[in-house]
Amino acid sequence: MATMKALVFRKVGLIESTEIPIPEITAPNQVLLKVAACGICGSDVKIMEGKHVYKENTVLGHEFCGTVVDIGSSVTAVKVGDWIALDNNSRCGVCDFCRMGFSSQCIELKNRTLGIFKNGGYAEYVLATEDVCFRIPNVIDEITGTQVETLGTVLNGMNTVQMQCYDSVLVLGCGPIGYLFTAIAKNVAASVAVTEIDPFRFDIAKKFGVPAFNPETCNLEEEILKLTSGKKMDVVIDATGTQLENAIKYVTPGGKILAFGMDSSYMANIQPNYITRNAIKILGTYIGQNTILPSIKLLQSGKLDMRNFFTEVIPLTSGVGAFAKLGLDLNEMKHVPKKAMKIVLKP
Amino acid sequence: MATMKALVFRKVGLIESTEIPIPEITAPNQVLLKVAACGICGSDVKIMEGKHVYKENTVLGHEFCGTVVDIGSSVTAVKVGDWIALDNNSRCGVCDFCRMGFSSQCIELKNRTLGIFKNGGYAEYVLATEDVCFRIPNVIDEITGTQVETLGTVLNGMNTVQMQCYDSVLVLGCGPIGYLFTAIAKNVAASVAVTEIDPFRFDIAKKFGVPAFNPETCNLEEEILKLTSGKKMDVVIDATGTQLENAIKYVTPGGKILAFGMDSSYMANIQPNYITRNAIKILGTYIGQNTILPSIKLLQSGKLDMRNFFTEVIPLTSGVGAFAKLGLDLNEMKHVPKKAMKIVLKP
Amino acid sequence: MATMKALVFRKVGLIESTEIPIPEITAPNQVLLKVAACGICGSDVKIMEGKHVYKENTVLGHEFCGTVVDIGSSVTAVKVGDWIALDNNSRCGVCDFCRMGFSSQCIELKNRTLGIFKNGGYAEYVLATEDVCFRIPNVIDEITGTQVETLGTVLNGMNTVQMQCYDSVLVLGCGPIGYLFTAIAKNVAASVAVTEIDPFRFDIAKKFGVPAFNPETCNLEEEILKLTSGKKMDVVIDATGTQLENAIKYVTPGGKILAFGMDSSYMANIQPNYITRNAIKILGTYIGQNTILPSIKLLQSGKLDMRNFFTEVIPLTSGVGAFAKLGLDLNEMKHVPKKAMKIVLKP
Amino acid sequence: MATMKALVFRKVGLIESTEIPIPEITAPNQVLLKVAACGICGSDVKIMEGKHVYKENTVLGHEFCGTVVDIGSSVTAVKVGDWIALDNNSRCGVCDFCRMGFSSQCIELKNRTLGIFKNGGYAEYVLATEDVCFRIPNVIDEITGTQVETLGTVLNGMNTVQMQCYDSVLVLGCGPIGYLFTAIAKNVAASVAVTEIDPFRFDIAKKFGVPAFNPETCNLEEEILKLTSGKKMDVVIDATGTQLENAIKYVTPGGKILAFGMDSSYMANIQPNYITRNAIKILGTYIGQNTILPSIKLLQSGKLDMRNFFTEVIPLTSGVGAFAKLGLDLNEMKHVPKKAMKIVLKP
Repeated sequence: MATMKALVFRKVGLIESTEIPIPEITAPNQVLLKVAACGICGSDVKIMEGKHVYKENTVLGHEFCGTVVDIGSSVTAVKVGDWIALDNNSRCGVCDFCRMGFSSQCIELKNRTLGIFKNGGYAEYVLATEDVCFRIPNVIDEITGTQVETLGTVLNGMNTVQMQCYDSVLVLGCGPIGYLFTAIAKNVAASVAVTEIDPFRFDIAKKFGVPAFNPETCNLEEEILKLTSGKKMDVVIDATGTQLENAIKYVTPGGKILAFGMDSSYMANIQPNYITRNAIKILGTYIGQNTILPSIKLLQSGKLDMRNFFTEVIPLTSGVGAFAKLGLDLNEMKHVPKKAMKIVLKP
Repeated sequence: MATMKALVFRKVGLIESTEIPIPEITAPNQVLLKVAACGICGSDVKIMEGKHVYKENTVLGHEFCGTVVDIGSSVTAVKVGDWIALDNNSRCGVCDFCRMGFSSQCIELKNRTLGIFKNGGYAEYVLATEDVCFRIPNVIDEITGTQVETLGTVLNGMNTVQMQCYDSVLVLGCGPIGYLFTAIAKNVAASVAVTEIDPFRFDIAKKFGVPAFNPETCNLEEEILKLTSGKKMDVVIDATGTQLENAIKYVTPGGKILAFGMDSSYMANIQPNYITRNAIKILGTYIGQNTILPSIKLLQSGKLDMRNFFTEVIPLTSGVGAFAKLGLDLNEMKHVPKKAMKIVLKP
Repeated sequence: MATMKALVFRKVGLIESTEIPIPEITAPNQVLLKVAACGICGSDVKIMEGKHVYKENTVLGHEFCGTVVDIGSSVTAVKVGDWIALDNNSRCGVCDFCRMGFSSQCIELKNRTLGIFKNGGYAEYVLATEDVCFRIPNVIDEITGTQVETLGTVLNGMNTVQMQCYDSVLVLGCGPIGYLFTAIAKNVAASVAVTEIDPFRFDIAKKFGVPAFNPETCNLEEEILKLTSGKKMDVVIDATGTQLENAIKYVTPGGKILAFGMDSSYMANIQPNYITRNAIKILGTYIGQNTILPSIKLLQSGKLDMRNFFTEVIPLTSGVGAFAKLGLDLNEMKHVPKKAMKIVLKP
Repeated sequence: MATMKALVFRKVGLIESTEIPIPEITAPNQVLLKVAACGICGSDVKIMEGKHVYKENTVLGHEFCGTVVDIGSSVTAVKVGDWIALDNNSRCGVCDFCRMGFSSQCIELKNRTLGIFKNGGYAEYVLATEDVCFRIPNVIDEITGTQVETLGTVLNGMNTVQMQCYDSVLVLGCGPIGYLFTAIAKNVAASVAVTEIDPFRFDIAKKFGVPAFNPETCNLEEEILKLTSGKKMDVVIDATGTQLENAIKYVTPGGKILAFGMDSSYMANIQPNYITRNAIKILGTYIGQNTILPSIKLLQSGKLDMRNFFTEVIPLTSGVGAFAKLGLDLNEMKHVPKKAMKIVLKP
């Protein structure tokens, strides 16, 4: 039986570069994909820490693209040789949420997600189902192609928050998600500012050429008042999951807060009276939904400033060492300063 | 100088039935109104307690209608003899909020509101400005006419929450605001349930013929799961200002919470991660905005079930005694059980 | 091989009551359904005339409900014995429209629709796929259950037009679709009026207790001005497909026209300048989309006034004769006055 | 009495450079403005032809900015010395449309518009009312400041059409309005294409660096199919008023058409069945509404590519000669090829 290289998540703290069998088509709706590249997501880092749902002995990696090398008998959406990106979140299509058009809440996500519950993209090959395979044009290269789904989640946030061309926007946190929101807002909105506390990523944030702040070294509320002539921000995007209390301080009356980042350890103490008096909207949005094609369209346009997004591209077999650059020292299982925005693995 | 009867708010805890001069037109945009009736609002009760902004030596009362008896030289919207309702919140029209079409945040509200900052409807006559005077059809009688603005605030909430005809709706609190939301949802939505803890008002809530719960005597979360086959509510309206934590428990993934009621003493401890994971929307909405004409249309239609809304109509001069029925014993300045939904004063 | 009764569409003008084999499960995602009842849709009448797309030698009927009697190996959404309604329009899930969440434009509808391109509900049994089978509660009986999908299309229209509780609404045409819109608007909107030219259906329209007009025997524009104090209608729903020119006349500035009914023979001559000057919105909406569950919720609530919707329930084998009551004399292939709103066939 | 230079519209075909008295404050809400610059709008050209409503013996010009030199006693929004732009359309605030928040349909526009019904900006001074005066930051210079209101109308269109960051957009017509929509869409949307038939303006359209087409010299439908891989455009903006039939051809199923340009001589022959089958939305939008502040924010941001918008800046006294460059030879009253995008007059 032919084998392939893969990074297998063994248990919290342990990911292993090894050889496993190349998967084979066993159902009519399956697609076998040769992986071109796979990004390391922040949630993979959280899995390694045990701070995210996980399944042991699974190949991680859910940000990948590649080429179709085999298809099941009923597959029509792609054919062998197609250059494709994936939505790692396969939806069941028949739960009540899917049937309401609200597939980001599909109750089967917990069994189906590639790279978490099923083997993912830290490997040479991935077995997927037709529904999650999307043809992409050649103009989207293998590095950019890893971010189709990531951008899709951000676009679901954009669909929720409905940013206007005259809005002032504040993005809290400039990891990969905050980066993508900032890049979009830089195009769409009248003005955008971004924050980040990690020094490496703050340096990247500054390269957007928009106001960038480290909230630990400035009085952010004052800076925002200055930037907006006292009006505060029309849209505040929490890309960290820990900033709701602050977001409420920074948003203008009638403004919108997008609660995007996730951190289940954070509790917010808020005054609902203030939400009401100022007609503030707090909008939760989860993963992507109908946004893979929009993501492809936007990446294809070349309009997003992705110049500083990809920090490095390294071989798959060096992947274990990349987690330290993303802030988690696997040997000592402790947080360290980040040395990367996005790292991409190539098998 | 001619005088009129009025209830004057002297200071926290003291409101006085007295005679004051009948006001006169002194500016071209003014309208003098003979009051037909004036409702007592819950915020008037809060003013008596010192729990709401107030101005001493002012005639309270902002839920009133009446007949135009004099107009200034530039007034065109109404004429002498017109039967009118009022928006007690006069907007300046030139602040940034007004100019953005977001007049519910007008920065001049704090100086202009009739019945709080300027003399209001607990009197025989009120001096208003043209902008807040709205002609109403005769089919809206003097009792119903007192609620035009109140319903206008509720309709601003409806504009914010965009209830659908297939939604399940939960209204938390059945005071006058909760009553109006329940009456609307009973028409609009597929199903509605309502809660109330005050015994008098709970009895009224039950008369809607929809599920009514006293959350102090039942397990509301279980009841909601039962009502919705485990799905929870599409829309939850907090008509109390103290229920955000609960509202988050009762709302379905993807659902909407309308933060309408106001209680500045309440702090909510919430987990933003839950908001994000379940794509919940928390929507603040404050007073009315462009909703007086819609309110008039809806009241004119006769479609709202107002049968149990007005508890009693009493003479203006008996108004001081009405506060106890609304839950505040003015003599001892302590809370007592309510004996009314809405009380209307007639001069 | 066991056989069943069925009405088979042979060719334009010819539908035949006959016996055909009972279908059998041949694929893992299939569901075999024992039909409880099936409504006759206006589009079935158009198929008989050759004015709608059709496929010869197909069992017509797409408004049906029934009981699951067999399922394929991969089916999870329903089980044998379940009481279900159907969405006759199976969507492929992988075309660009489906993937954008816009499945009403699925490019495979033209091959998949039950009762048009595949055998439908004018039979004792129907072979369907899991995706179109929806469990319904017992409170929805077999007659009401036939209209789950029909109401679903209307709810897609409601999602598009976003009717408000203070709106005035005009429904042009009171066939089954116009009936359903009127029944909803009667609940949701501040006021509703309805038109119909067919005498039988006009008599039904009048039973709603809302203003009903025969535009051939009155000056409808004048009536509308009278009803709305000169303001015209906030929402106009064209349930016929031939009324766009009139709808533009009847709608208020800033109002919305829902273009719902379909008649490919009708061309409208309109002045775009008027659309612009009056900020009118013309909103097309096609079949249902994510609206079967909402339809079930609404029917389950019992809130729609369906009392005059079902004209008669007749045996399946008498179905051929029903077309004349729906306005098409099959013998002479000519239009005749209607004698029914909705006719339901029971096998 | 002091006089000032002004261009007075005498009658169709005749505009005269003359001296008229400098206006004076006569009411408490008035503002006297020293004009810095005034753009010539396409509707001014139409007035000269008699193809737009007009009032004889009025100073034209409604695209202007300047400095406050005197204010009435009740004015608070601006003070002497302020640098301001104007909304030439003063709204009454008390008609039903204004009171519904729908002031673009204000019934008093027809009496109040500066530069059409009251003396406008082709002069050294203009007498305005407080409500239409908006402070602008110094970073908006006198040339850009003339377009605050024009851009405000375009932003009302943007509010209506809700362009998304992944949309493909087609702008039909590249006069000043089409230019502004193209400049915005170039920032906001994934892709934009623009059309124009006038050679001078087509040359400007090409400078955007986006696909530009002269529909008279290409097969536009084919070009659109090519650009969009057969999908057609998500958003089509008719900036001419004569393109609705074409817009329907160019828009994708589910797409939106913004009917913005106005030409009352154009009638469109459309098939409503197509609108319905393809779920197309046709959205009218008229002038600006709550969009002056957004316009100022967007111009202040410097994000719009205005580099090719202003063709020339000439003295007010040379203004009569400018109409020929905008396509109307006043001597012979005939259309001639355009030689300008926007011409600005300086007193």
